[in-house]
Amino acid sequence: MSKSSNAAVTILGLGLMGTALAGAYLAKGHPTTIWNRTARKGDDLVAEGARRAETPAEAVAASNIAIICVLDYATTRAVVEPLAGALAGKLLVNLTSGQPEQARAMAKWAAERGIDYLDGAIMSTPPGIGQAETLLLYAGARALFDKHRATLAVMGGGSVLVAEDPGSALLYDIGLLGIMYATIAGYFNSLALVGADGVTAKTFTPYVTKWLGAMANFLPEMGRQADERDYRGAEATLEMQATGLTHFIEAHEARGVDPVPVKYIKGLLDRAVADGHGTDDLARLMEYIKKR
Amino acid sequence: MSKSSNAAVTILGLGLMGTALAGAYLAKGHPTTIWNRTARKGDDLVAEGARRAETPAEAVAASNIAIICVLDYATTRAVVEPLAGALAGKLLVNLTSGQPEQARAMAKWAAERGIDYLDGAIMSTPPGIGQAETLLLYAGARALFDKHRATLAVMGGGSVLVAEDPGSALLYDIGLLGIMYATIAGYFNSLALVGADGVTAKTFTPYVTKWLGAMANFLPEMGRQADERDYRGAEATLEMQATGLTHFIEAHEARGVDPVPVKYIKGLLDRAVADGHGTDDLARLMEYIKKR
Ligand SMILES: NC(=O)c1ccc[n+]([C@@H]2O[C@H](COP(=O)([O-])OP(=O)(O)OC[C@H]3O[C@@H](n4cnc5c(N)ncnc54)[C@H](OP(=O)(O)O)[C@@H]3O)[C@@H](O)[C@H]2O)c1
Ligand SMILES: NC(=O)c1ccc[n+]([C@@H]2O[C@H](COP(=O)([O-])OP(=O)(O)OC[C@H]3O[C@@H](n4cnc5c(N)ncnc54)[C@H](OP(=O)(O)O)[C@@H]3O)[C@@H](O)[C@H]2O)c1
Repeated sequence: MSKSSNAAVTILGLGLMGTALAGAYLAKGHPTTIWNRTARKGDDLVAEGARRAETPAEAVAASNIAIICVLDYATTRAVVEPLAGALAGKLLVNLTSGQPEQARAMAKWAAERGIDYLDGAIMSTPPGIGQAETLLLYAGARALFDKHRATLAVMGGGSVLVAEDPGSALLYDIGLLGIMYATIAGYFNSLALVGADGVTAKTFTPYVTKWLGAMANFLPEMGRQADERDYRGAEATLEMQATGLTHFIEAHEARGVDPVPVKYIKGLLDRAVADGHGTDDLARLMEYIKKR
Repeated sequence: MSKSSNAAVTILGLGLMGTALAGAYLAKGHPTTIWNRTARKGDDLVAEGARRAETPAEAVAASNIAIICVLDYATTRAVVEPLAGALAGKLLVNLTSGQPEQARAMAKWAAERGIDYLDGAIMSTPPGIGQAETLLLYAGARALFDKHRATLAVMGGGSVLVAEDPGSALLYDIGLLGIMYATIAGYFNSLALVGADGVTAKTFTPYVTKWLGAMANFLPEMGRQADERDYRGAEATLEMQATGLTHFIEAHEARGVDPVPVKYIKGLLDRAVADGHGTDDLARLMEYIKKR
């Protein structure tokens, strides 16, 4: 292993994402050991200077920091559980997607075995890895995060500890990705809508990106109303919006598009209006989101 | 009417939005005539210097520009059709929400009667009216828009002509608001998700607003793929995302939340994977949006 002031790291899993993670450490001159079930996926990284380990145990022995990013938690557990002894006293960073409960269980497993553990979620596709703005969410002990902050920031300059609850990174991840998929659903519906009248994505999308900026400005006020359960003082009443939504749905359907997210909001809104909340603000719908 | 270099304007409809529109013209010193079915809604505007008309005909006679903003197109037609003679040779700006077909029919009606017509859509709630950044979308003859650009910009500095097709402002409006409602659906679902684990909107929302900025960066590439119907070269494959989405849905449902927009995307994605497109990019779902 080459001499370097940069911490040595081991990357377990060389899918699209693990490959990008290893590439970022190599680019910054970190001694980087790699392992993947399908070994050939590491060939390019070896050419760039990575050391290939034949087994996960050999990989973990090479560094004090092991970063795992594989398909899911079941895979993570299958790879990591046999390594408990080898990982004791080292840092294990798990960037695999999953559920908060799985992260909490994994943190407990690690703590019981003397393994330092940080859970994380990557809010980017692989090309964003290693860039200054890229957001990675972490969960775990603040002291641990602070100690390794510089090494973690190699993967993304926007790395941040969300909270000490080991489930919090995945909780926020699911929340943010849920919003992303909802927005993309709306975007695809709208591309089909305007496309039916001959408008291309290229023409329409600049309006969308500008519009996302406008939304970023008004969501905090909706959030405040939700926290305080105070939905009065609407600038756009539910009753008025019900009229608009009826038109939106018709306009989509006339073009062969089923605007499912808009219909979902309309369904909640109709219930709120029927319950006498017609002059309230949209955040009133929060009261109808959770099943009771 | 006071002497002024500012164009005189008439505002028909003093709901939450019409009141804000009239207020913006008064604030900039435009001679402003107002009419509303329920007259008392204009009391504050009269105190600020507006002239109240007793009838729509009287209101329209007072200015060369009439701006109407009422509940829906049926209301607009009911108010405006009896005024055809009075409006001939003048500009009618219709900022009422509706469908592209309704705008196209109204433009035809106006053209046949010698009325200059611009259709428009307001991409803001009333507090944004009169501000430099506020976006209003217009549709109609470019020469007409250019002629009245300064007067229209009083309502929002971001006023822009989308296209000459008189339906285009409402088409874009529906497209953008569809995305907004989809995003809000995702936001509400996510607030309920993180809320179930004790996280407030105040804590979570800063991540959301930052995340909307990240989305604004990657939507154009999805749009390009949709225009070119080229979905190869995925950095995040549909197969990998199917695994993630299953977890997201479970995480929501475990907290009593039904994440309808995410399930919608998952349903489209499963069809694409079943058709053999598992290694494609997400924009492949565009092929499944339109009913065939
Ligand atoms: N790609 C993205 O944009 C992105 C963004 C954020 C988060 N993520 C998350 O990052 C993780 C990896 O994603 P990816 O894009 O790299 O996925 P991927 O390209 O599909 O790679 C999957 C990885 O998991 C390994 N794996 C699967 N089953 C295994 C098993 N039974 N035993 C051992 N290894 C196994 C694969 O090994 P083989 O090579 O041997 O199959 C490969 O290394 C996922 O949790 C994903 O949600 C991805
Ligand atoms: N508020 C927003 O945030 C917002 C944003 C963008 C676009 N818009 C659009 O702007 C338009 C007006 O919205 P708004 O918020 O001002 O709604 P609003 O507060 O509910 O006001 C509705 C207006 O329509 C009038 N109206 C309704 N039925 C009528 C009838 N049969 N005859 C004559 N007038 C009638 C009302 O008169 P009365 O006072 O006599 O009832 C009132 O002036 C809608 O198309 C809406 O989609 C609103």
